[in-house]
Amino acid sequence: MDGRTVGVLGAGQLGRMFVEAASRLNVKVLLLDSGTVSPAKQINYQPHDPSSSTSISQHVDGSFSDPDKIIELAKRVDVLTVEIEHVDAMQLQRVLDQGLVKAVHPLPSTILVIQDKYEQKIHLQLHNIPVADFLPIDDSLAASVQTAAEHFGYPLMLKSRTQAYDGKGNYVVKSEGDISAAVQALGGGKRKLYAERWAPFVKEVAVMVVRSASGIVRSYPAVETIHKDNICHTVFAPLRHSDANVPEQARAIAEMAVATFGGAGIFGVEMFLMPDGALIINEIAPRPHNSGHYTIEACETSQYENHLRAILDLPLGSTALKVPSAAMLNLLGLADLEKDAEALKKTYLPAHVSLGIPGATTHLYGKAGCRKGRKMGHITIVGQSDAEVAQRLLPLQRSLDFATQAVESNRPLPSDAVARFSLSSTPGPATSKSAADFKHAHPLVGIIMGSDSDLPVMLPAAEILKKFNVPFELTIVSAHRTPDRMREYARSAPARGLRVVIAGAGGAAHLPGMVAAQTALPVIGVPVKGSTLDGVDSLHSIVQMPRGIPVATVAINNSTNAALLAIRILAASDPKYLAAMQQYMDDMENEVLVKVEKLSELGWDYLSRK
Amino acid sequence: MDGRTVGVLGAGQLGRMFVEAASRLNVKVLLLDSGTVSPAKQINYQPHDPSSSTSISQHVDGSFSDPDKIIELAKRVDVLTVEIEHVDAMQLQRVLDQGLVKAVHPLPSTILVIQDKYEQKIHLQLHNIPVADFLPIDDSLAASVQTAAEHFGYPLMLKSRTQAYDGKGNYVVKSEGDISAAVQALGGGKRKLYAERWAPFVKEVAVMVVRSASGIVRSYPAVETIHKDNICHTVFAPLRHSDANVPEQARAIAEMAVATFGGAGIFGVEMFLMPDGALIINEIAPRPHNSGHYTIEACETSQYENHLRAILDLPLGSTALKVPSAAMLNLLGLADLEKDAEALKKTYLPAHVSLGIPGATTHLYGKAGCRKGRKMGHITIVGQSDAEVAQRLLPLQRSLDFATQAVESNRPLPSDAVARFSLSSTPGPATSKSAADFKHAHPLVGIIMGSDSDLPVMLPAAEILKKFNVPFELTIVSAHRTPDRMREYARSAPARGLRVVIAGAGGAAHLPGMVAAQTALPVIGVPVKGSTLDGVDSLHSIVQMPRGIPVATVAINNSTNAALLAIRILAASDPKYLAAMQQYMDDMENEVLVKVEKLSELGWDYLSRK
Repeated sequence: MDGRTVGVLGAGQLGRMFVEAASRLNVKVLLLDSGTVSPAKQINYQPHDPSSSTSISQHVDGSFSDPDKIIELAKRVDVLTVEIEHVDAMQLQRVLDQGLVKAVHPLPSTILVIQDKYEQKIHLQLHNIPVADFLPIDDSLAASVQTAAEHFGYPLMLKSRTQAYDGKGNYVVKSEGDISAAVQALGGGKRKLYAERWAPFVKEVAVMVVRSASGIVRSYPAVETIHKDNICHTVFAPLRHSDANVPEQARAIAEMAVATFGGAGIFGVEMFLMPDGALIINEIAPRPHNSGHYTIEACETSQYENHLRAILDLPLGSTALKVPSAAMLNLLGLADLEKDAEALKKTYLPAHVSLGIPGATTHLYGKAGCRKGRKMGHITIVGQSDAEVAQRLLPLQRSLDFATQAVESNRPLPSDAVARFSLSSTPGPATSKSAADFKHAHPLVGIIMGSDSDLPVMLPAAEILKKFNVPFELTIVSAHRTPDRMREYARSAPARGLRVVIAGAGGAAHLPGMVAAQTALPVIGVPVKGSTLDGVDSLHSIVQMPRGIPVATVAINNSTNAALLAIRILAASDPKYLAAMQQYMDDMENEVLVKVEKLSELGWDYLSRK
Repeated sequence: MDGRTVGVLGAGQLGRMFVEAASRLNVKVLLLDSGTVSPAKQINYQPHDPSSSTSISQHVDGSFSDPDKIIELAKRVDVLTVEIEHVDAMQLQRVLDQGLVKAVHPLPSTILVIQDKYEQKIHLQLHNIPVADFLPIDDSLAASVQTAAEHFGYPLMLKSRTQAYDGKGNYVVKSEGDISAAVQALGGGKRKLYAERWAPFVKEVAVMVVRSASGIVRSYPAVETIHKDNICHTVFAPLRHSDANVPEQARAIAEMAVATFGGAGIFGVEMFLMPDGALIINEIAPRPHNSGHYTIEACETSQYENHLRAILDLPLGSTALKVPSAAMLNLLGLADLEKDAEALKKTYLPAHVSLGIPGATTHLYGKAGCRKGRKMGHITIVGQSDAEVAQRLLPLQRSLDFATQAVESNRPLPSDAVARFSLSSTPGPATSKSAADFKHAHPLVGIIMGSDSDLPVMLPAAEILKKFNVPFELTIVSAHRTPDRMREYARSAPARGLRVVIAGAGGAAHLPGMVAAQTALPVIGVPVKGSTLDGVDSLHSIVQMPRGIPVATVAINNSTNAALLAIRILAASDPKYLAAMQQYMDDMENEVLVKVEKLSELGWDYLSRK
């Protein structure tokens, strides 16, 4: 873009996706890693410069922890960065001090603090950032762990301070009897350790934060991360929670944490959400992060491009989601190629299945071999709602389970393996009134009413939503008998992913208006006809809202129209529902035209002659 | 993905973006083009294979019209494709016939037909695809053009049959006096020509269509293309038109046209929209196309990935938009580097400005030099509405105009050139009631009423929308006095990009219901109080809609609530409006709390003591 060249320590998948972003802005990237076919080098041809004495490529072939190679790379670039924090940070400081490069981002001092998890925790604690309680383990080892156990109780986490990632270097000490095995597993005294209070979290949350050299921080939406065997397995964006403050709080804590570090770049902040709604930071990575892969397809600027912009001191890009919902599934090597000749084929099964899934984008990293647990690729799914993303994810998850079983049972994949998993083969909504009908895991519409006596009037709404395949929930919320439940329902609605609330009420009919007063979402009111006044009482109670808080009121007892209105509201932004509603209207027109035909054929008295 | 290698004739920007898509799926691509630093080769490092005798790279260095080089490439790959149609199609047929590759897509026969525009038109006409009237020009040249003029009148288009693109090879013959100059300009008899009836189009439309080897065709949304000096300048997706059939018709015609060709791949179909709403095909490109660049950021699968999938006979990806609105701006070289040392800097000005624009993604192609008119890059903008995209595009267009003027006046760019163009420096909504307030070019909400006598009741709705910065339009539509206008308004609403209609009506109050009967969008009804019955007549007329067609009814005369409901409807899908509505509600709460404070301080009679 402006002629500057960036050097990266490491050329794996993070480097590869960084190179992709840099190529788009025509920023030249030189990589330091062993071999010429590492993932990032594959997509970045650096032609031989005849005037230099270097060979084929201007990349540097060698280990990113080799001090001489770091110097070699530094001499060829303007700015140095890393795709991994386990680098020789002291050497990075030296090349910076010697003026071999104009800048190193993240700062070597930041890398030094972060790569020692104990130092990282001390740093965060000093800055009043919430972390789990922790204690150092001294050379007495077992005795020191016992001291920690006296403070924290069991289970406690024993952790290696350095070179720990993807769960490697962690040990859960469940009782005093585990201590010696734990110490042994973590290097038997060769590596420095620390102890951490066990965090009985309810969810794992991550936030990517980009920091400019001048200290501006911008966070991406909070996401939920699902780990399996300590490795990131699935990511859901954005994080849903019944308390709308939780996602915002996660971003605020992540921004505060990243603001404490100098230098520029992107940071991945992993957190635990505790049962009481509190958030504590687990760890921070000073680089693009697995939990931020989804940003490539789902956000206005990807984590990789924002890292590039940050380290080049260009304006930071927008971190907003550009789609309503996204998920990311990691493709981890299912087996070693030496043990299972089909290891790669089985690992890639979800990738092949993904080609049939709308909104799925597959990234394969071009890694040479296949090892169990190795990150081989990932699949991002975007959609117009959580429900759509969840449905699109299902065939991928099922094919992954299938491939995993094929590895475990040492069976080859059947030739129709891909065809077995498609969107159409995943079950649609049940035709019976099963719980799945009205307790969808990712509802867009909530139908509520004050009492089960309103059910006969409100059920047609549920039937319509089912007919249009709209994910919804149906429950009882009474304004007068459960005011706290109503408040909780209304306040949590947007954070849970709801987009419309339909509320039915009779008589004094306060429910729709009181829900509308406590949520920013559109609320549709259905006046339910009581035994007196023909429902006019409910109608006026619902429609005559004061200026400031609207309720979208439909005809008395007409919950059908409430559901149709809810679908029209979804249709305002989702062409799928717009087309379905247009079709519904066309069908109604045709039904009437059939009756026109019938009447003209059979005569005006055809009804009485039936 | 499955070990197959693709060869591409040409390695420019289209090849570059194709390589990007292929890398993501780990499909190896070898390129045939001159030089080692062409745009596509830069992002695709093919390491030297020590066992072969070829040099540094496995790409082929040479012209894509060199038959020997085509053979050389064919021998190294499984499937051949092109990034440009001006290739040696006969040679492609030969390498296919000789079994040097498993497949060539698009088919050489398709390329042959398409690269001769006259043959292309004959082909389309034979398949009943609408095209402008055309006639061949024989060797008599001027006489033959005169014959064509007798059929078509003046002006007429004189076109070169081959090697014509970006307006090169076209000549507008305005009168008989132009003929000899036109013939001279188009090769003076060395190139074959044909004549076409002048098409006084109102818009240029393009549709990308992907075709699988088995003949499945899938079209992307129709887009509007703006050409300047015959080169694509800006693209807007999706195409908006008051007649919802036009975009669908454009897709249908494009799909029909592409279905007539054998083989697989992506096709760009350029069309003219005529004053009567008819669409005729201008030309077809058998490859990724400038009008489809927006698909990278805006669609579920990009045109490049779908081209790859098609030619490898993998399942086609979804062509749906994943964002509500997008635009693309080409970065064409503003001057030759030899004539203006700042040519590149000036050309890239909008790229630098784009870094400050949310939703903008910049692609720079890494071309070595800068020539006037050369495609150097492009910027795609996505947003939650046409209005948002248009607003984000504005600083880019202005900076482009500024850079163009700097070239024309041969002035250097000022040092603050980038800073001059930002979203915040573009004017917001005018504070006076200017036309821009209620005749927004890209409205999301339409406010209508039966008569200007309803204006006093309906204006608060406009004020609220203005306060929330929601693009809207306000006009008079009467159900009883202008039923045709009402029908037109309702039917065109979704195709014009509207998401909500607010309709105010008094007395019999048919307008909201009759609009709702003719659009699938949500319609909000405001009962306007008349001189009798206190507005209850209007309320009942609006709210008591029959099953099937809902109207969201608000309180009598309460157009404020209608606008707030409209914003809540937008908020259901756009977090920006959700946050604004929550803020509005918080502010209302605070206002009341201030009064609570005041009353408790001043006593219950403070109002009367004022």
